[in-house]
Amino acid sequence: MQKMLEQQLENLTIKPGEIVLAAVSGGVDSVVLLDLLYSVREQYGFQLQVAHLDHRIRPQSGDDACFVQQRCAELGIPCQVEVADVPQLAAQRKLSLETAAREARREFLQRVAEQLGARLIVLGHQRGDQAETFLQRLLRGSGTAGLGGMRPLQGIWWRPLLDCSREQILGYARQHGLTWVEDASNADPDYLRNRLRHQLLPELHGYNPQIEPRLAELCRQLADETDYWQEKISGILPELIVSESDGLRLSRPGLLGLHPALRARLEREALRRVRGDLQRIESIHLKAIDDLLSAGRSQAQLDLPGCWAARRYDILWLRSAAPEILPGYDLALSVPGELELPCGRVLLAALQEEQLGESARVAEFSWSELPGELRVRSWRPGDRFAPAGMAGHQHLKAYFSNQKVELEERARTPLLTCGDEILWVIGRRRSRHAVPGRKVGKNLRLELI
Amino acid sequence: MQKMLEQQLENLTIKPGEIVLAAVSGGVDSVVLLDLLYSVREQYGFQLQVAHLDHRIRPQSGDDACFVQQRCAELGIPCQVEVADVPQLAAQRKLSLETAAREARREFLQRVAEQLGARLIVLGHQRGDQAETFLQRLLRGSGTAGLGGMRPLQGIWWRPLLDCSREQILGYARQHGLTWVEDASNADPDYLRNRLRHQLLPELHGYNPQIEPRLAELCRQLADETDYWQEKISGILPELIVSESDGLRLSRPGLLGLHPALRARLEREALRRVRGDLQRIESIHLKAIDDLLSAGRSQAQLDLPGCWAARRYDILWLRSAAPEILPGYDLALSVPGELELPCGRVLLAALQEEQLGESARVAEFSWSELPGELRVRSWRPGDRFAPAGMAGHQHLKAYFSNQKVELEERARTPLLTCGDEILWVIGRRRSRHAVPGRKVGKNLRLELI
Repeated sequence: MQKMLEQQLENLTIKPGEIVLAAVSGGVDSVVLLDLLYSVREQYGFQLQVAHLDHRIRPQSGDDACFVQQRCAELGIPCQVEVADVPQLAAQRKLSLETAAREARREFLQRVAEQLGARLIVLGHQRGDQAETFLQRLLRGSGTAGLGGMRPLQGIWWRPLLDCSREQILGYARQHGLTWVEDASNADPDYLRNRLRHQLLPELHGYNPQIEPRLAELCRQLADETDYWQEKISGILPELIVSESDGLRLSRPGLLGLHPALRARLEREALRRVRGDLQRIESIHLKAIDDLLSAGRSQAQLDLPGCWAARRYDILWLRSAAPEILPGYDLALSVPGELELPCGRVLLAALQEEQLGESARVAEFSWSELPGELRVRSWRPGDRFAPAGMAGHQHLKAYFSNQKVELEERARTPLLTCGDEILWVIGRRRSRHAVPGRKVGKNLRLELI
Repeated sequence: MQKMLEQQLENLTIKPGEIVLAAVSGGVDSVVLLDLLYSVREQYGFQLQVAHLDHRIRPQSGDDACFVQQRCAELGIPCQVEVADVPQLAAQRKLSLETAAREARREFLQRVAEQLGARLIVLGHQRGDQAETFLQRLLRGSGTAGLGGMRPLQGIWWRPLLDCSREQILGYARQHGLTWVEDASNADPDYLRNRLRHQLLPELHGYNPQIEPRLAELCRQLADETDYWQEKISGILPELIVSESDGLRLSRPGLLGLHPALRARLEREALRRVRGDLQRIESIHLKAIDDLLSAGRSQAQLDLPGCWAARRYDILWLRSAAPEILPGYDLALSVPGELELPCGRVLLAALQEEQLGESARVAEFSWSELPGELRVRSWRPGDRFAPAGMAGHQHLKAYFSNQKVELEERARTPLLTCGDEILWVIGRRRSRHAVPGRKVGKNLRLELI
């Protein structure tokens, strides 16, 4: 095992005096890890330090901390111990004890490593942990990307024992007369991990005695492939991004032009960008996004764990939550006057003799042809109007649809009404009503700003 | 379920009158399949036919055949039944009964489909079968490519029920008052399949009640990704092929230049070409090939199930079996004369006055300086010679190695000897001995043809 460690150290090119921080729980894996690192620290010239998080899940967790401190004192290695109330953290963050403990440990180690300026954080994970992680994710319903296991080296994290079996590690511990503590929670069948370790894995072992190394090899392969996809995606994703100002808007035709496998991987990565991580995202959610893209409806949306996905015509729109849709409103317009609209814009109303010309944001109406009260309101189902330049009436919904106006934009689009008539789809299209004529008379000029 | 079938049929664009061949075992899946196909056959204008293989694994297997024939007679559908002695076939081909039955059924169905000119062969596989196949392969140690499951449509094979649960199928059968036969071997725990179905899958269901659809979704994703890799590889592989005349010779630098994930997938495909299929090839074998490529030895080889892989300098060489290495030999050369060499080539020996010039295949020696008997033999460990144009002696092994002569080629390279001296590494390099001088005298001229 020392040889295997040395082989890995050769590739790590550690500079003399650099600090290597070992996470030591006191269990056999980390005790062996500590012993191995201790035995080669001079040869490779690094300074070894230890960190231990007392997780307070069990009353006797303080004993483990004492054990680790004592062992470090024997070896003359600095050891930092911190107490974290993991049960409280789990309640706060609404996590399982296992997940909360993992997060707390990770945060603690990163903090210590930063303080020390450590080159590496070394973890005692071994092959069995790898196989258990795989099964845990498989049972949870992870897709190919989620199944890729832990890697021996991942950023600052180093797991030199990842290819070692539990038997090898126990063998080393006995041979070197090491003592360690047994975490009583390792036997508790309430933890999924323990059920996998003590029930499922032994059963699979009955089908194939080589199951553990085979699963570890599969994990390695899956991690390699995920790495490949990651490279591929970092080249393609930027080309598909239409906008990043409000969540992430991706080109639907661009996505549909990709191989389905690449598309699924890319959508996963896009979700990661929007959410920050991929926790609770399973392959079924990716499938749902894919269905959203390829189904017939040009506007549809779905809520996913921790995010929201929508098709808006030629756009796939991802946000951490659904966008707020402006509630309906109906306001009186005074002339002359200024009306502040719920969408944040302002409508200016003025009366004048001249016609100054119209644009998307400006419309003019013959004042004498406007009999009733002018109001500005949001659209309602069933709304129709008489678009200028067209005969007859058109349903506003059809108009919006033809113009590919997104649902959220529809709610933000104000309408100018007079009695039952819609005079202007403000900012978009005016109606045939009260078009200013050649003859002299006052005109109402409206401008959206 | 009928709707789901119709949806798939829409995409299949079956022409009027085309024959669709349903494989019906008599079990509930295939009985439901038959009923569904029967109910839509007129709407989609295809002719439905049935095939059944009586596998003779159980004494009462003939009853199943009768049941299927009777059902087809009721529906007025042609039905072909054939009897195969699967136990005997299994013994012949050294296969498990399960595998032999699958192969026999496959061959039978393909043959009938060909006779009938059928457009499709329809199989009753459902989601549970997909999950079982996945677990079977996972337990066997398959890599990512091997884990990709059955596809709904794969060439002529169509599996319309692949997304249906067993409950859905049973529900349909009850609702339509269908009867079916229970294959007694489905309960036999000696079959791996049955242990997976009745023991492992229910246990996994305890971890996640949605395990079956999740595994099916994972299979779909793995199949998609395999499809992507396949496309990718068919573009890259031709560029890496150095020669296909004796097995497959691939460029090692080309392979090492690929992303490891792509390389592994490509090596898999190369193995498929060399072996015809990938049966018994597991991820561990791919790993071994990868190690062969990246390890320090410039010539090394390994035996894999059903094939042989070797590194020969800048070549990865794959064959269905190791190449034969020529056994050692040591033959007398008569002058003048012709010597047939074990490598299949011929060495011509002639005496003459003139010097006609040397080449790789021709060497000339001063006859008076050759004291002893001339022999032609294969190389032996410890062989040394005195290369022309160099001072001192060189080990033949070092010479071969410098010249990157492959192991098999070394055994095929004849040596001309006289006493203890090697005069000529025939076809490659002569020694300093007996170089013809300016003075008059007979010369021995040797030519390799």
